[in-house]
Amino acid sequence: MKTKHVIDLESLSIEELMEIIELANEIMKDPGEYSDVCRGKILATLFYEPSTRTQMSFKTAMLRLGGSIIGFDNPQNSSVSKGESLKDTITVVGGYADIIAIRHSLEGAAKAASLYSAAPVINAGDGGHLHPTQTLTDVVTLYNEKGTLDNMTIGLCGDLKNGRTVHSLIKTMSHFKGNRFVLISTPELTVPQYIKDIMNASGCRYTEVRSLAEAIPELDVLYMTRIQRERFKNYEEYEKQKGVFVLDREKMRLARHDMKILHPLPRVDEIAEDVDYDDRAKYLIQTVYGMYARMALIMKMLENADRKPMPRQFDTHNVRCSNPNCISYTEEYLPRIFHPLGGDMLLCKYCEARNLI
Amino acid sequence: MKTKHVIDLESLSIEELMEIIELANEIMKDPGEYSDVCRGKILATLFYEPSTRTQMSFKTAMLRLGGSIIGFDNPQNSSVSKGESLKDTITVVGGYADIIAIRHSLEGAAKAASLYSAAPVINAGDGGHLHPTQTLTDVVTLYNEKGTLDNMTIGLCGDLKNGRTVHSLIKTMSHFKGNRFVLISTPELTVPQYIKDIMNASGCRYTEVRSLAEAIPELDVLYMTRIQRERFKNYEEYEKQKGVFVLDREKMRLARHDMKILHPLPRVDEIAEDVDYDDRAKYLIQTVYGMYARMALIMKMLENADRKPMPRQFDTHNVRCSNPNCISYTEEYLPRIFHPLGGDMLLCKYCEARNLI
Amino acid sequence: MKTKHVIDLESLSIEELMEIIELANEIMKDPGEYSDVCRGKILATLFYEPSTRTQMSFKTAMLRLGGSIIGFDNPQNSSVSKGESLKDTITVVGGYADIIAIRHSLEGAAKAASLYSAAPVINAGDGGHLHPTQTLTDVVTLYNEKGTLDNMTIGLCGDLKNGRTVHSLIKTMSHFKGNRFVLISTPELTVPQYIKDIMNASGCRYTEVRSLAEAIPELDVLYMTRIQRERFKNYEEYEKQKGVFVLDREKMRLARHDMKILHPLPRVDEIAEDVDYDDRAKYLIQTVYGMYARMALIMKMLENADRKPMPRQFDTHNVRCSNPNCISYTEEYLPRIFHPLGGDMLLCKYCEARNLI
Repeated sequence: MKTKHVIDLESLSIEELMEIIELANEIMKDPGEYSDVCRGKILATLFYEPSTRTQMSFKTAMLRLGGSIIGFDNPQNSSVSKGESLKDTITVVGGYADIIAIRHSLEGAAKAASLYSAAPVINAGDGGHLHPTQTLTDVVTLYNEKGTLDNMTIGLCGDLKNGRTVHSLIKTMSHFKGNRFVLISTPELTVPQYIKDIMNASGCRYTEVRSLAEAIPELDVLYMTRIQRERFKNYEEYEKQKGVFVLDREKMRLARHDMKILHPLPRVDEIAEDVDYDDRAKYLIQTVYGMYARMALIMKMLENADRKPMPRQFDTHNVRCSNPNCISYTEEYLPRIFHPLGGDMLLCKYCEARNLI
Repeated sequence: MKTKHVIDLESLSIEELMEIIELANEIMKDPGEYSDVCRGKILATLFYEPSTRTQMSFKTAMLRLGGSIIGFDNPQNSSVSKGESLKDTITVVGGYADIIAIRHSLEGAAKAASLYSAAPVINAGDGGHLHPTQTLTDVVTLYNEKGTLDNMTIGLCGDLKNGRTVHSLIKTMSHFKGNRFVLISTPELTVPQYIKDIMNASGCRYTEVRSLAEAIPELDVLYMTRIQRERFKNYEEYEKQKGVFVLDREKMRLARHDMKILHPLPRVDEIAEDVDYDDRAKYLIQTVYGMYARMALIMKMLENADRKPMPRQFDTHNVRCSNPNCISYTEEYLPRIFHPLGGDMLLCKYCEARNLI
Repeated sequence: MKTKHVIDLESLSIEELMEIIELANEIMKDPGEYSDVCRGKILATLFYEPSTRTQMSFKTAMLRLGGSIIGFDNPQNSSVSKGESLKDTITVVGGYADIIAIRHSLEGAAKAASLYSAAPVINAGDGGHLHPTQTLTDVVTLYNEKGTLDNMTIGLCGDLKNGRTVHSLIKTMSHFKGNRFVLISTPELTVPQYIKDIMNASGCRYTEVRSLAEAIPELDVLYMTRIQRERFKNYEEYEKQKGVFVLDREKMRLARHDMKILHPLPRVDEIAEDVDYDDRAKYLIQTVYGMYARMALIMKMLENADRKPMPRQFDTHNVRCSNPNCISYTEEYLPRIFHPLGGDMLLCKYCEARNLI
């Protein structure tokens, strides 16, 4: 694998992505063969924001490869991040560990970490921005449960406006041929325009609908997510609408026999508990695919990892990203790096916010 | 070992219990022989309620068998248990780990976990209900320090009403022949009637006394526990009584030369610090026996562990357990499962509370 | 190594210290050779006070030797230290682990732990008192970056009054020949008299200066530390003085080409971020030397470790140490042990406070 850091799944080529998926499947067939491949290697899980599930998945993956773990999960109670820059922490930990998984509440934090780390960096979630190993989990699940990544009708249900896993899954599945998306949400919570642009650019068809029951009969895959109560216009709207986006046994009767249900978890009440016993429910076993996906990713990233940190000179701008949730807004020493988008528009390389000069 | 989950030590046969005790002794003789038997295996320690001592004992046991650890110890600061059911967490972790040790503040939580876990579950304490590995520790200590589990006069001192380790030890030792119990407490803190029923049913003699000094000369074993200040009727009673249940050098002078002192720890002031230097004090070394006991238990449970989760269909009642500390009271999706006790009485299979229909 | 517990670096002989430094260098040359030497061994990191950085360094060291880890980092949220004496915790953990690293907010806590631990104890910081593995890190860094430990002009800048790492480094470097110290601080924050006594006794020259810019040209080594704002006499003084003790590119222009900069980290703003790109900056790589230093220390301590706890009889005084930050002040069962200093003066063996009888 040529890519050193995995900040965004989009930065991998389709070949690299397929290599990881296929390695995940190889490991799944015979895990014992891989139980020693990372012997002597250390994964640092730097969780600036607690996410016990994601952290356990990374730890399990590394331990099942024979490696070991350092890190933290509770920085507000710890001494890291009190009066130490992300840069210093990453430089130090990049000297201790062979690979780093970082979770942070600020957008672009994993990108910023990758500038200073001698060890390869995996983005384990940066605010509402990206969470590439969740999408990798989704894709490995689809590949195994459907046998293909092409020519599927993929329903996505819930909060499609704010759901980073939804956006990322659409982006990734748009690279495969013949996929069609059915977007199931309230009018207020539909996908952002830039996601529509991506579907259009890749030639993927999509439809927007307002009812799960109407959409479900034609789906090969249903990707469920939660709509938080506070996303509805008001309480009346919430009371009126909530059942429309809940998957239950009744709606399952309308679905195909080979439709598969995915969910990034945690599930609250958007999938009724008794759907768990339906053979089409794959959202719990999905986490096991996620473990294998992370095992494959870690193996591939360690394979050719150099230990060179980034170049010291950056082409730094005099403007500063205006997104208050961007890591470069808080950690002021960070180089101000942008992609020019044409005209007066700059795309922040940390958080991907658009800035007008 | 045929029993898959160890929720209650009572669910093991005496043969299974003796197998574990004897394996613990084998490991103790030559720990190096066992340092690799769990290589590649993962223990998840899911501590919904912090208990650093118990968690360290489990972790040490697994590490000394060559295995590794995932888990959490601080869920209120973590994202687990925030808006995720015990069922979902256990299903996911049961996919990551080979064996699970769960600690929870609600009664019956380990039983509930065992319904959904593909991996074997060990109860590491569920509220005031059960704590089988503590009792296993006590029994391994007795077996080593006394050379037998039969024909002993066992004193139990302190809060015998609320002490789950006291109840559990009496239940277990009642299965062995010729044991006699001397119950040393205030009149308010004597053992519950159902424990007396068990001793009577098994033909074990017992006496209830009010003074440690009077009881101590005839004891083979003294099991000390703490009486919390708030358990006394009032402050005057506390001041008057407290010394009566404290073990000190003076009382030790009245004890046999081969009497052994046990304590589940932590000790506060119910055993004076200078008793530690008496050769009969076994409450500190007891924790080392506990480590070997847990090593043996983990080995035995992993030996024949299948990966089949429980059947999906439960014989669920329309009544709900009325114990507000029962896990089934909080996690409402749980099947309502009871043992009929005859008449209108049902025994909750989670918390063992009696319910009148 | 004959010394069992490492509470104070001063308790090692120079031969023992050099053995550790040389082993650290051996490991650094070929870490793969050492990746299994502690297989099956357990390090307990008992952090009664959180220090994520130090704890990660110890954990990494043990894992890179093939060992494993138990412990805690957050006792206020845990059940340890709630109603359990340090003695009981240490006795229990000393039965679980092969070696213990303890961090505590009270002075003398590591010494107290060593009285009861069957396993060797490393002091990972006891309040403002000692932090020997930081000094070991500093010395390993110097030995590698300068090629010698003799005949250097060593500048120490910042809060020299309260900085325990400064005091410890001066003490250690005074044992090597020909070293000279340049002490750079405000008049209020100069080194204590007993440190001057040590330099005088060992025949080391020292000068006290008030400006980093003036001192820097003659230095072989610059050891930077932070002056906390509240250490200045008042806010005006802080505003006036703060720049004087900040290292920036401008001051670096005055320094020798082979001067090396060290810092115990975390750095706040006493070293400007762009100094990081100067080849003379060694404060970040210093943490990697620290990892090798701890690997060497752990190896040496485990080599000949007996499992005998301390003798049970102590020569206990009837006076009590008057330092309220001393562990013996809080944990009252501890033996009251002192070195007689002559006259009516006693030196507390825990915290090294002087007590007048």
